[in-house]
This record gives sequence, C-alpha cells and structure tokens, in this order.
Amino acid sequence: MAAATIYSCAVSTLIAVAPESLPAMHRGLCDAVTRAGGVVASETDLEQAEALVWADPAAAEHFTALINRLPALKWVQLPYAGVETFTDHLDPRFTFTCAKGTYALPVAEHVIALALAGLRDLHTFVPATSWGDRTGRNLLGANVTVLGAGGITTELVRLLEPWRCNISVVRRSNDPFPGADRTFATNELRQAISAADVVVVAWALTDETAGLLDASAFAAMKHDAWLVNVGRGGHLVTDHLVAALETGTIGGAALDVTDPEPLPATHRLWQLDNCIITPHVGNTAEMGLPLLMQRVEDNVRRFLQNQELVGLVDIEAGY
Amino acid sequence: MAAATIYSCAVSTLIAVAPESLPAMHRGLCDAVTRAGGVVASETDLEQAEALVWADPAAAEHFTALINRLPALKWVQLPYAGVETFTDHLDPRFTFTCAKGTYALPVAEHVIALALAGLRDLHTFVPATSWGDRTGRNLLGANVTVLGAGGITTELVRLLEPWRCNISVVRRSNDPFPGADRTFATNELRQAISAADVVVVAWALTDETAGLLDASAFAAMKHDAWLVNVGRGGHLVTDHLVAALETGTIGGAALDVTDPEPLPATHRLWQLDNCIITPHVGNTAEMGLPLLMQRVEDNVRRFLQNQELVGLVDIEAGY
Repeated sequence: MAAATIYSCAVSTLIAVAPESLPAMHRGLCDAVTRAGGVVASETDLEQAEALVWADPAAAEHFTALINRLPALKWVQLPYAGVETFTDHLDPRFTFTCAKGTYALPVAEHVIALALAGLRDLHTFVPATSWGDRTGRNLLGANVTVLGAGGITTELVRLLEPWRCNISVVRRSNDPFPGADRTFATNELRQAISAADVVVVAWALTDETAGLLDASAFAAMKHDAWLVNVGRGGHLVTDHLVAALETGTIGGAALDVTDPEPLPATHRLWQLDNCIITPHVGNTAEMGLPLLMQRVEDNVRRFLQNQELVGLVDIEAGY
Repeated sequence: MAAATIYSCAVSTLIAVAPESLPAMHRGLCDAVTRAGGVVASETDLEQAEALVWADPAAAEHFTALINRLPALKWVQLPYAGVETFTDHLDPRFTFTCAKGTYALPVAEHVIALALAGLRDLHTFVPATSWGDRTGRNLLGANVTVLGAGGITTELVRLLEPWRCNISVVRRSNDPFPGADRTFATNELRQAISAADVVVVAWALTDETAGLLDASAFAAMKHDAWLVNVGRGGHLVTDHLVAALETGTIGGAALDVTDPEPLPATHRLWQLDNCIITPHVGNTAEMGLPLLMQRVEDNVRRFLQNQELVGLVDIEAGY
C-alpha cells in the first residue's frame, strides 16, 4: 500500500483539500477531486500540492497559514460565489476560482419564491388565523428589474421565460443582456427601477455597489414594489430600508441576505409585516454541495488538462 | 335615439347581461359584449335576448327566474371555471359555457407560489422573529404530480418547463398529457402520488373526485411531500388532512380552497404550522375580470358568427 501511494504521488498532480472543519463538505470535495483524476494531498506530501480546494466558507482566517505551507501552489478553488471574506488573501501569484455561477440556479428559484410570496401576499396569509380578503397580484407579465448581470440573472431570466415578464437588467455597461427587454448602466439605476413591480438585487458586493440602495433609490421605486435581495446585505442602507417599509415608500422587502448578517433578533426588520426574512437559504449547503462538487470536479479535470478554469476571480474587481 | 335603438335591435343579436349585483363585473361584461359586436338587452327587450351572460358567480338562486323570462334563449355564459353552484340549473335545452381555461394561468402561478412556499419553508421563515436554521428544498427537478388534466395543468406544465421537474398527471384516461413525463388514470392515484415531492390538486369537483384524498391517499404520499390544493376543498377529507398534518404523514399542505369554505376561524387547520391557507386567491376578481372579459368577447363574437363556443360545459359530466 505504501509503495502504491508513493508511485501514485510521483506521476499524479496533488491537490490539497482543506480545512477539515466541515466533514461532509471535505469528504464531498475529496471525492470530486478523485473523480476528476486528481490525487488528494495528505499531510505528509502537502508541500507538493499544486492546487488547493478550500473546504470551509467561514474559515478564511486559517487561509494564509496554509498557503505558506504550499510552495508549489498554482491554483486555489474557493467554495462560495462571493469571495469578499477572502479579499485580503487574493494573492496575485495564484489563480483563484470561486463557485460563481454554480449556485445561481437555486438562488434564482429563491428569487421567484420570494417575489411570489410578496406579490401574492403570503406574508399576510401565512400568519393569518382567519379567512382574509382576496388580495394579491401576478408576477406573470410584471415589470422585473434585476440589479446585476451574473449567473443568478442568467438563470432567473431563463426560469421566468414562460412568465412573460418585462425584464430590465442593470449592469456596469448597458450592453444588451440576453433575454432581457432592456439593459441599463449602473448610473441609470433610478430610471431602471422606477417602473418595476419587483426589484431583484443580484449584484456581487463591491465598493461600487455597497449602499447604492438608499433612501433616494427607494423613493424612486413604486409604492407597491417589492424589493428582493439575494445579493448581499451591504447593497442596502438597512436603516433607510426600515424607514421605506414603515412609511410605505415601497410595498415590501424579501431579504435572503442582511446587514448585519445574521440579523440580530432585536432588529426592527423582524417586526415589520411587509418584510420577509429568510436566513441566507437561496442556496443551502444541502442544495449547494452537489453543485460545488460538480464544479470542483470540472475544474480539477480542466486543471489536469491545462484548460482554462471556470469561475475565475478578477482579483482587482474583487469578484 | 329611440329610433336608432329600435333599428339596432331589429338587426342585432340581443344579449342579456345579468344580474347587476356586482357593478364592476356587470359593466365589464357589457363592454365585452359591445366590443364583440353584440347589443346588451335592456329590461324592455329582454325577451328577445338569445344569450345570457351571467354576471355574478354567487347569485345562482336568481338564475331560474331570469331564464324563464327569456323565451328566445339559446346560450348561457357562466362566469366561473367551476360550475357546481349552477349544477341544478344546467337545462339541456340551452348551450352552457363557463370560464374554464380562462383563469388557469393565474391559478397555475399560485400553485408555484404555494409549492415554493412549502418546499422553501416560508411557512416557518415568515412568522419567525429571529435568524433560523438554513433549511429548504428545491422545486427545481422535483417530482410533481398534478391531479387533473384541464387548463390549470396545461398552464402549470408550461410555466414549469425550464424548472426540469419530473411531472406526472392523473386524469380519467391515462392518455399522455402534453409536456408531462408520465400519465396515470384516476384509479392509479396512489401509485401516481407515491414519489411526489408536491401533489397539486387541480381537478374540477365531481362525484368521482369528491373525497378521493383521504387518509389512505395521504398514507401513500412521502412524509416530506407537500399537498397544494387549488381545485376545490371537497376533493379532500378535511379531518383526514388535519390528522395527516398533525402526525407528519405528509410534510405540509397549502390550501387555496377549503371544505368548508370560507374556513371558520375556529378550524384546527389555522393552528397547524405546516398548513398554509390562502383565501381562494389563485385568481382574484382583480386578476380575473380582464380574463373573463376577453373570454366573453371571444364567445360573443363566435356566437354572432355561428362558430363553436369556447369553454362548453358537459352537462352530464358537470364541468
């Protein structure tokens, strides 16, 4: 057995999978590496590892210490779509990939779940304990504005295709987005959201987008519009959102991400009838691990064959 | 003016629109008749009316009295998709049409809203006042069994097309249903629902389907399956459903229709965390009137041109 292991190491590309703090995730990612034809580095041959698959989205603080033990390192695969917890560690000597795009489909589904919950008044009907008035609006044919032009937007547009919504996309440039009826540049934000029944926040969090949704943006929205945030809490000025919900400036908000996150139990948002909060479940570990495993298998195969990797992180842009 | 009216009556087909108990509905349906080229009968020329557009879904008790005042009557347009309130009045001397198919699209949307609410645990997250566990399942790729093969099923299958669900349809015959992966006959119900993540009740209510979803049917379902009812409350044995929800025989139920309906505030179902109740809003008056007006306009045009009408009621089958 020992001899076989040494032989295998000599001809195979070693890939480190760490840390082991989340056993199911670690095991799944090791399987993915193996299925792709890679060999998972053990503690003793770690310094020959040419790639690192980081197996815990929340353990970035151990990241640098491990990197320093990997002199042969060329490529790092990060586990999440957003990389902001790793921003301080994005060393340009290495190629970084993240899971962007991978998680887009379940998140796009969650956008539709939240938009329908808002428009169909489920926030009222779910807690009700008696028969209510017959209220609600359709997502069918509605004006939907999506902030961001990444994987979530791609999948959302695809899922909504038979719903005949009127879809606007807000992106850096105003280049047309496939499947969207209109495209706006980020500096046209207010115009883009002014007629929307639903505004979907699907941006990656960058310095450019942080806090863009403030009191003036809410004032530009329709009074019955719903805001759905599956990007990051930091895109919104939370205090301004509270005010907009309390005064009826907008119809409601459905937040799968918050600032701060987790949202403390004492926060005012929990008390607002027109605010739906879900605990960052657009893509859960259960939904996401199989998708991440597929992505890692795909990328390890590409790495072994010297092909371009999927989900490359633009270190300068931070996503 | 009087002369013009008489002239118009002499050459035009008169169509009665009654009762006037719901002014907005009455006005909308009169407009639809006029747009199609018909003339709305006034109180004085009522007995020349060849058609009747019934303008109040809940006033069936006045129906026979009016019919008896219309000796020239050939065709009756009923306002709802289900005709059970009119069943005693379906006189085979006349052609009856109902609004079946018309309301299907918003109801299909509501099915998806309710299925997503159940699978995505919105029944738990909406009333929560603190950050919870990251739970939830996907409708994407799920096994969906739809009971009934009418307009709602047609629209639901169409809306779900990009979601790559595995769809089974239960219908009278087991003839293939377009877009469904499998079709079952009604007597294969238990087999059809045994693997479903979501069971959608979209049957018209008939003697054949009343009470079909009883304790034995719930026992055949998966323990985490959600039941979505947008058909009629009478398809379910409500007491059996309460027991199935309380014991965890099924995962949950989302009911847009109930038996009795409206559901009394004292009913046990209001207290169950895994039961979502919406007050028959799959299609609201606001969503539905424009759709009904289109149908009436279309049918009046067909009637005037001696073409086959849309939404014909099979008097014997009762739908």
